[in-house]
Amino acid sequence: MVRNLARAVFQYTEPPRIISYACIAGKKEGEGPMASCFDRIEPDAHFGQETWEQAESTMQRQTLQLALDKCSLDSKEISCICAGDLMNQCIGTTYGLRPMDIPVLGIYGACSTMAEGILTASLLAACGAGEYTAAVTSSHFSTAERQFRFPLSYGGTRPPTAQWTCTASGAVILQKSDKEKGGIGVTGVCIGKIVDLGVTDASHMGAAMAPAAADTIVRYLEATGTKPSAYDAIVTGDLGIIGSELVRDLVMKQGYDMNAVHRDCGVMMFDGETQDTHAGGSGCGCSASIVCGHFLPLLQRGAMKKILYAATGALMSPTASQQGESIPGISHLVELTADCQDSGIE
Amino acid sequence: MVRNLARAVFQYTEPPRIISYACIAGKKEGEGPMASCFDRIEPDAHFGQETWEQAESTMQRQTLQLALDKCSLDSKEISCICAGDLMNQCIGTTYGLRPMDIPVLGIYGACSTMAEGILTASLLAACGAGEYTAAVTSSHFSTAERQFRFPLSYGGTRPPTAQWTCTASGAVILQKSDKEKGGIGVTGVCIGKIVDLGVTDASHMGAAMAPAAADTIVRYLEATGTKPSAYDAIVTGDLGIIGSELVRDLVMKQGYDMNAVHRDCGVMMFDGETQDTHAGGSGCGCSASIVCGHFLPLLQRGAMKKILYAATGALMSPTASQQGESIPGISHLVELTADCQDSGIE
Repeated sequence: MVRNLARAVFQYTEPPRIISYACIAGKKEGEGPMASCFDRIEPDAHFGQETWEQAESTMQRQTLQLALDKCSLDSKEISCICAGDLMNQCIGTTYGLRPMDIPVLGIYGACSTMAEGILTASLLAACGAGEYTAAVTSSHFSTAERQFRFPLSYGGTRPPTAQWTCTASGAVILQKSDKEKGGIGVTGVCIGKIVDLGVTDASHMGAAMAPAAADTIVRYLEATGTKPSAYDAIVTGDLGIIGSELVRDLVMKQGYDMNAVHRDCGVMMFDGETQDTHAGGSGCGCSASIVCGHFLPLLQRGAMKKILYAATGALMSPTASQQGESIPGISHLVELTADCQDSGIE
Repeated sequence: MVRNLARAVFQYTEPPRIISYACIAGKKEGEGPMASCFDRIEPDAHFGQETWEQAESTMQRQTLQLALDKCSLDSKEISCICAGDLMNQCIGTTYGLRPMDIPVLGIYGACSTMAEGILTASLLAACGAGEYTAAVTSSHFSTAERQFRFPLSYGGTRPPTAQWTCTASGAVILQKSDKEKGGIGVTGVCIGKIVDLGVTDASHMGAAMAPAAADTIVRYLEATGTKPSAYDAIVTGDLGIIGSELVRDLVMKQGYDMNAVHRDCGVMMFDGETQDTHAGGSGCGCSASIVCGHFLPLLQRGAMKKILYAATGALMSPTASQQGESIPGISHLVELTADCQDSGIE
């Protein structure tokens, strides 16, 4: 069950555990500073398929399979997977998971999908809806850029605020609480609100998403009565260089200094000096792969004890942008705790 | 908590209650046989807005507001809403709910969205993640037809198997179990699997979705050890005339005769003789509005005691179809019980 701390903020009395995780990344991501954290770097952007969409579906399925293999589970043992991606009608998930024979809750949170997936899968596990649940997401440079911005061959100039959609995927397997073992617990949750401060530039997503991240992080800190220093890291999804400065400022204005512990996966993914990625990485797979490849292993090893993962999504569509709409953001947060112990039934 | 009956099939020991519901439909839907069940029939297809997308967002927001008004709740009292729609990046929900200041879990299940929303919102309520949760979805003829098929002004001939995307929306408000009062309980749940038997015709959606509906309904009947006669109605989403025959046949082949109790919202929505709607209605709003306008009131009055609502979604995208992909279906199911009593904590 959950201990409800504030509106849409709760903690589990018997936290579900993350028992396995995996990530796969593309060639460019594998040439960046995070290269060593990926389980596999795929040199073929097509993943052996004919279309970019099939490539992304294949990547998502392979990532999930790898996470299953790591904990020696068969897909039939998963009660439900919470999954989504950036493509229209979430076809990365639909066609990726089609052969897997797993009950699926489709989710849409743009680049906040991984946190939303862990959140929803943890809720199912905490409720006792099954022994094992899962979450997976993905993004692919070539499916996202042509869908959201320009045809790939158009060669438009990218402004300094632009981010680079990562070709990457991350998957986690959760198990309902087992009092005997510790493990990484999903201990807390904050469901995001739609926040829109009027940014209209689809090449300036960090600025559009930062207010939503700040709203979610501050709501969680307030509800739990904690300070940023209580966490080894407060990880945002893909705000990039400009959005990261913004979110730290916005959180500071509400009385919390998170400069020392803030990390942004969009900033971490690429070396801006040599990789020409401007403001950083983006896409559902950006934070999904870095959380699964970097932060979860740190928690597993005990090198970190507790982190907040606040993934951020920009909820616009090209149609809405063409109609002059601004870009609403959303940020869902999960608290992840190493060597987790149940707090006892309330 | 939940009593887990089989993989992705569970029942609540303290079922959340549906305390309010509302539906709004368009002019054509208001000229059909279900006219009297809608809370409002909007004669202006633009809902006073400039674009079809803004029209759908407005309809979705107005429907939610109406459901809130009926139970005298303010939007700030809702802990979380589970919402989605058919438009790319679910912008009906994003822009529709933007001014409402409610934490949102975005979901994507195509036309199965209303059942997925009730399912997810009931899980949050059952877990104690808040006193009130909600679900809403919508579809609009003009946003869906041009996105999934042809430009509206193209005037393509519709084959006999085609369905008509409804302009309609439905919303429900849930409250966590209150032992003192009965009310309509969300008593059981079956999460859908992706099922694809190879249909490639986007004008033949009923055939693409029927196998998923049959899979979900049979899994629920098997897990609960019940027969179709245990329910006053087994309601499918929008299989239409052809898909309805198929689902009854598929369920029959697995040993269950549901002919006497099967109802399909796509069949119910229009008068095929006079409204030129071919195989029937479709869209997220089709079953959402008929469940909220017809079946929930029947349960409320005690005219029905227990129904299964298995909404059905076709998970294709135009891009996938153009690449030659077949159409995967999914169906999520909720069991709704009148004058619901808790079964006691396990």
